[in-house]
Amino acid sequence: MSCPTVPIHKALHVAVVGVGLVGKEFMSQMIASRYPFVLTGLCNSKCMILNRSRSDDQCFNPSRWEDALAASNTPVDLAILRDALAQFVKEGKRAVLVDNTASEDIALTYPQFLDAGVHVVTPNKKAFSGEQDYYLRLIGQGGGATAPVARGRFLNESTVGAGLPIVSTLRDLVETGDKIKKIEGVFSGTMSYIFNNFSTGEPGGISFSGVVAQAKQNGYTEPNPMDDLNGADVARKLTILSRMVDPLMLALLPHGYKSVDTQSLIPLELESVEDGDTFIRRLPEFDAEIAKKREEAAIEGCVLRYVGIIDVENKVVKAGLEKYPKTHAFATSLGGSDNIIMFHSERYSPRPLIVQGAGAGAAVTAMGVMSDLLKLL
Amino acid sequence: MSCPTVPIHKALHVAVVGVGLVGKEFMSQMIASRYPFVLTGLCNSKCMILNRSRSDDQCFNPSRWEDALAASNTPVDLAILRDALAQFVKEGKRAVLVDNTASEDIALTYPQFLDAGVHVVTPNKKAFSGEQDYYLRLIGQGGGATAPVARGRFLNESTVGAGLPIVSTLRDLVETGDKIKKIEGVFSGTMSYIFNNFSTGEPGGISFSGVVAQAKQNGYTEPNPMDDLNGADVARKLTILSRMVDPLMLALLPHGYKSVDTQSLIPLELESVEDGDTFIRRLPEFDAEIAKKREEAAIEGCVLRYVGIIDVENKVVKAGLEKYPKTHAFATSLGGSDNIIMFHSERYSPRPLIVQGAGAGAAVTAMGVMSDLLKLL
Ligand SMILES: NC(=O)c1ccc[n+]([C@@H]2O[C@H](COP(=O)([O-])OP(=O)(O)OC[C@H]3O[C@@H](n4cnc5c(N)ncnc54)[C@H](OP(=O)(O)O)[C@@H]3O)[C@@H](O)[C@H]2O)c1
Ligand SMILES: NC(=O)c1ccc[n+]([C@@H]2O[C@H](COP(=O)([O-])OP(=O)(O)OC[C@H]3O[C@@H](n4cnc5c(N)ncnc54)[C@H](OP(=O)(O)O)[C@@H]3O)[C@@H](O)[C@H]2O)c1
Repeated sequence: MSCPTVPIHKALHVAVVGVGLVGKEFMSQMIASRYPFVLTGLCNSKCMILNRSRSDDQCFNPSRWEDALAASNTPVDLAILRDALAQFVKEGKRAVLVDNTASEDIALTYPQFLDAGVHVVTPNKKAFSGEQDYYLRLIGQGGGATAPVARGRFLNESTVGAGLPIVSTLRDLVETGDKIKKIEGVFSGTMSYIFNNFSTGEPGGISFSGVVAQAKQNGYTEPNPMDDLNGADVARKLTILSRMVDPLMLALLPHGYKSVDTQSLIPLELESVEDGDTFIRRLPEFDAEIAKKREEAAIEGCVLRYVGIIDVENKVVKAGLEKYPKTHAFATSLGGSDNIIMFHSERYSPRPLIVQGAGAGAAVTAMGVMSDLLKLL
Repeated sequence: MSCPTVPIHKALHVAVVGVGLVGKEFMSQMIASRYPFVLTGLCNSKCMILNRSRSDDQCFNPSRWEDALAASNTPVDLAILRDALAQFVKEGKRAVLVDNTASEDIALTYPQFLDAGVHVVTPNKKAFSGEQDYYLRLIGQGGGATAPVARGRFLNESTVGAGLPIVSTLRDLVETGDKIKKIEGVFSGTMSYIFNNFSTGEPGGISFSGVVAQAKQNGYTEPNPMDDLNGADVARKLTILSRMVDPLMLALLPHGYKSVDTQSLIPLELESVEDGDTFIRRLPEFDAEIAKKREEAAIEGCVLRYVGIIDVENKVVKAGLEKYPKTHAFATSLGGSDNIIMFHSERYSPRPLIVQGAGAGAAVTAMGVMSDLLKLL
């Protein structure tokens, strides 16, 4: 990204909201890119900077974005950001909002950007996995004002597998007329790490609470591991994919991820615990129960994995513990905190199309965001 | 694809060359698509049909393409086809050549299409894996006339993994600034089938000639299996990927796939055999040699796989037999005639990004072609 040398007519005006772990890495990738992006706006939760000028040589130096943002006193106002991007669209230019937050509030504003012809690119799962009414507005089927400009595109590759080609692969399968039968996978890096270590198919092994504590220590969990163990993240990813598969699956999930049949690994008695440290301290009380499941699985020659399943033929979307033979790819091929996703379709049958690899981390997530941005060029 | 209802300004004018196994399936997928493609030209090796009209309602009915092509007497003339597409580009419309042949002659004409602003989409490996001089012309770096229009894009996803996201994944990794260290995989469906059955890590098993005959019988080989066993197809795929990785890799392969260090599985004594049947009849004479390699591997707890390796750090591109432990994904996870490709990069490290699934077959190859076409919309 090189500000002064870009031919204006080809440039893509980019506003970036959120410069945390993913956002920072995204900024580096965008700045290093050889493509003509013009950084038009930038904000964190406190303040924003905005460059309304139409000519490139007046924009702030994108590689100094941290200084520029630190020096700003302007409070965040998404409506102002949207109007600035919409103005570029009206002038026949192209503009995109990149949302690198996990904010529901920001997600709720997407339809206004899209209606104004602004594209939206995001790793934020909130929008696509929420209530159906909102989802329909997001994809432009919820009624409301018909825009005078072509609607913006919504791209969210990184919401499911970070940098892994999951959303784009499903889109290609569906758009080229394949029939999806079933999608099955380990969708959570945290759950992958926990069960790859907890359940190897052999009897015995490390305790569940021990491996959860280890995962937290190694930075594989959210600050509070309960946010991983409740299964909501997997349910959100399943919702995002289900809604791409076919309208019948859409009807199954009126309340988005809340409609997914989700098994929580938080013991009932700990559900009201509020902080992660208390949770980790009390978790050993419940080790016996899940150790028993592991033994049962081992006796059958199986491992336990926390998986997500979208069974299109039987109209089931569920997240939870399942047993897999020790020879199954979920047992043999998986390691570290890798995700693995299997697409079973009419064309990929009897053997599925498989994508595997790290499904979280700032660099690979930013890569997913960046690759969506490149699709807009 | 619906001819009469398409708004002209959005339409993509498509000329299709080659309607064999892949081409026929591609036509079905394009016709069933909900996107505005206008079929502008169509040819097989004998004749062509051309629709120069600018208004959709005058185009021939695409779902009757077989009748229309059968009724044509017009000999194939790629220059006429190119000029017709170039004319659309001059009028501000968008046009694409879809080459579903394996013809080198057709591949040699791509630069002329691209220079005229026409996009090229193809599963034909010939162009991207050929001589470096030609490759440079293809990507617009070979000198020659500077075009008055923006150069067309060249998209060849299906050349490496058919419908699997291989080329696009590598492009995303490279374009977002990741550093590729090594790409390693089973790139040939035929080789996959042969070695999955021939070498399981146990001592003994079916003879090599037996499994080759079986592969031929089941339709997993070219009409002459020598065309698979010489390794050239794998070398071509490695060339295509190497050239995307980095300029240093480009310099390694001045003569394209011919510069790849390729192990042929055709016994020296049979190299001059011309027909597949003679080859299959004489192959048992050479079973002992490769069976010995299998035994050696089994003693080490390994299987034999015919793989392709692009080792960027050591600047090696090679195709040939390698040993892998029985616990390696190439042994445990592979089945049928699946391809599997591992991308080792700075970000995907120590564990690679993996894509696996059927890497040949008309439906999945046409899907790869079609998904490239959709990227142009
Ligand atoms: N990290 C991963 O591995 C991963 C993987 C897949 C998807 N994701 C998704 O990527 C997104 C970002 O994750 P992250 O790890 O980068 O989060 P993070 O480190 O917490 O950063 C969040 C950023 O968003 C800003 N922000 C929050 N609320 C905002 C608001 N209302 N208005 C403006 N800015 C706001 C924060 O501002 P301050 O700097 O002022 O706090 C911060 O810069 C999330 O949706 C996450 O689910 C992450
Ligand atoms: N099949 C697969 O699984 C697979 C997988 C990956 C890539 N591919 C690639 O896909 C391409 C097509 O494969 P395929 O299996 O469909 O081949 P195919 O069945 O042999 O069909 C080839 C088609 O191209 C036409 N053709 C050949 N030379 C021509 C020329 N000079 N001018 C005009 N038309 C010409 C043929 O015309 P006629 O009908 O008149 O003979 C035929 O319609 C090849 O490049 C192949 O390597 C195939």
